[in-house]
Amino acid sequence: MKEIAIGIDIGGTNTKFGLVDKDGETLFQKSIPTRAEGDVNEFFKDLQESIQGALKNFPDVDIKGVGIGAPNANYYKQTIEHAPNIRWGTIVPFGEIFKKYFKYPMVMTNDANAAAIGEMVYGAAKGMKDFIVITLGTGLGSGIVVNGQLVYGHDGFAGELGHVIVNPNGRYCGCGRKGCLETYVSATGIKRTVFKLLADYTYKSELRAIAFDDLTAEFITQAAMRKDPIAIAAFEYTGRILGIKLADTMVHTSPEAIFLFGGLVKAGDYIFKPTLEHMEKNMFPVFKNKLKLIPSGLMDKNAAVLGAAALVWKEFETP
Amino acid sequence: MKEIAIGIDIGGTNTKFGLVDKDGETLFQKSIPTRAEGDVNEFFKDLQESIQGALKNFPDVDIKGVGIGAPNANYYKQTIEHAPNIRWGTIVPFGEIFKKYFKYPMVMTNDANAAAIGEMVYGAAKGMKDFIVITLGTGLGSGIVVNGQLVYGHDGFAGELGHVIVNPNGRYCGCGRKGCLETYVSATGIKRTVFKLLADYTYKSELRAIAFDDLTAEFITQAAMRKDPIAIAAFEYTGRILGIKLADTMVHTSPEAIFLFGGLVKAGDYIFKPTLEHMEKNMFPVFKNKLKLIPSGLMDKNAAVLGAAALVWKEFETP
Repeated sequence: MKEIAIGIDIGGTNTKFGLVDKDGETLFQKSIPTRAEGDVNEFFKDLQESIQGALKNFPDVDIKGVGIGAPNANYYKQTIEHAPNIRWGTIVPFGEIFKKYFKYPMVMTNDANAAAIGEMVYGAAKGMKDFIVITLGTGLGSGIVVNGQLVYGHDGFAGELGHVIVNPNGRYCGCGRKGCLETYVSATGIKRTVFKLLADYTYKSELRAIAFDDLTAEFITQAAMRKDPIAIAAFEYTGRILGIKLADTMVHTSPEAIFLFGGLVKAGDYIFKPTLEHMEKNMFPVFKNKLKLIPSGLMDKNAAVLGAAALVWKEFETP
Repeated sequence: MKEIAIGIDIGGTNTKFGLVDKDGETLFQKSIPTRAEGDVNEFFKDLQESIQGALKNFPDVDIKGVGIGAPNANYYKQTIEHAPNIRWGTIVPFGEIFKKYFKYPMVMTNDANAAAIGEMVYGAAKGMKDFIVITLGTGLGSGIVVNGQLVYGHDGFAGELGHVIVNPNGRYCGCGRKGCLETYVSATGIKRTVFKLLADYTYKSELRAIAFDDLTAEFITQAAMRKDPIAIAAFEYTGRILGIKLADTMVHTSPEAIFLFGGLVKAGDYIFKPTLEHMEKNMFPVFKNKLKLIPSGLMDKNAAVLGAAALVWKEFETP
């Protein structure tokens, strides 16, 4: 009997699940619509059917549990709370509903926390006890690990570094406040920065030909590689702000490494160099030249499903 | 046989030690000079003699270990590193020297971390698993507890919230950078704020009669109680900056409570009200109205020695 974990990554549009073994081998993976606007029971019926269907082809596996990564998921209460893109309710009692459809032990947390556990179990943080994973997507997510344990905090919502305040009079944030880190440092953030720089400077730039709605972080990355001055300046601006804030994060939990994950990371030196420079420049002396800033080890893998599956090994396996 | 811990608090001028039982009862306490400018072996000879002398009067105790709180102490390496007021060396191998003089198991960390453990074992954090203690003295120290464990970080120096950056172009800090939190929020910080406000405003104030070298945080507190407008404004300024930064700290580890310790805390509402107001105003919505901001439960006790002793129960006792 091969031991496997079922990893489920719930997104606003699609939900991916996979059967993953202890070495990170994915035996099977499938995507189903989340139906985030509909009835949560419809989603669960779909999920149940799809998982049962998949398992028919793997009669010889021993399922150790189900790990779920979902936006605004609460680890302690097994709820999804106030998730902007999941409209099953304001506070969805996900764990309770799960029990009606599945008999497996289940553990859930938000996507960035799952990414951190994934990094520890399957990625570049193997053997590390103190590290942080920062996911740069539409927003900025983070998972903090201390003493080999994920930091959930008193209420289960710890590790929201996207909402550290860069400037109380800064950019409007989806959370209702102003100047949050993710309004600067994320795929959306760098796009906003490009438009600020196009306003501030007179450099020629291919980015002047593109409307806000059409611009992507991927295109900004490509423009930087073509030496577009606005694109390069946008990465410098992003890296400077991230670097300054990582120095602040360092004085909190003093991790061995910070891993960056997400599309922006593909810009390589364009993002890493200014981040590292400004992080070290602003670092409290005792922490200088200690922190490793590195790309996630799961960048080209099905990281979300692996992270969700990794939760199972971390939670239900005795070391 | 009564089980006791020996708690030792090493300061730049004096070192206090105490024999403390599990309930926080101090059987004996004494202060000796630290001789921080001299030979560390002279200090240890003094300490050994004083402790042996004390123990003669308590033949019936079982010593479980020694806990030490010291500035810039490293938990993992048992060293004192780059402590501005302890001149026994740049990196003092305290643990090694300790073994020459004492046979007891020993645990050491910095003063603010010891204060946090003290709060957990003897103070107002009993039963809490996630909390932070902030000590407001000459500087700002902090000890962060996550999952019932003190956060030491990868290098043993985690929890330096005094060096979060408020403003990269702000006040000069002893650490060599600018704008660190402790340059605003500490006994020294509020004094600097008073002088800034005396420059900015034309209000009459009794503080105009006092030179920088003569002004104390205690006097500013008394002036605030006498309704001095500059003193009150200085507390508001201090609380606003502390509040904003505590909201940032909250998104890191989401503690149940933050305890404030030190002379400034005696100002009561003058410091707590603006801190709480600006903390909540800047709080990420999911954390709003969750965090308890309260005075340390060890304020009128020999907190430093209790904190050091508490390290022993936390470290060498199996739960």
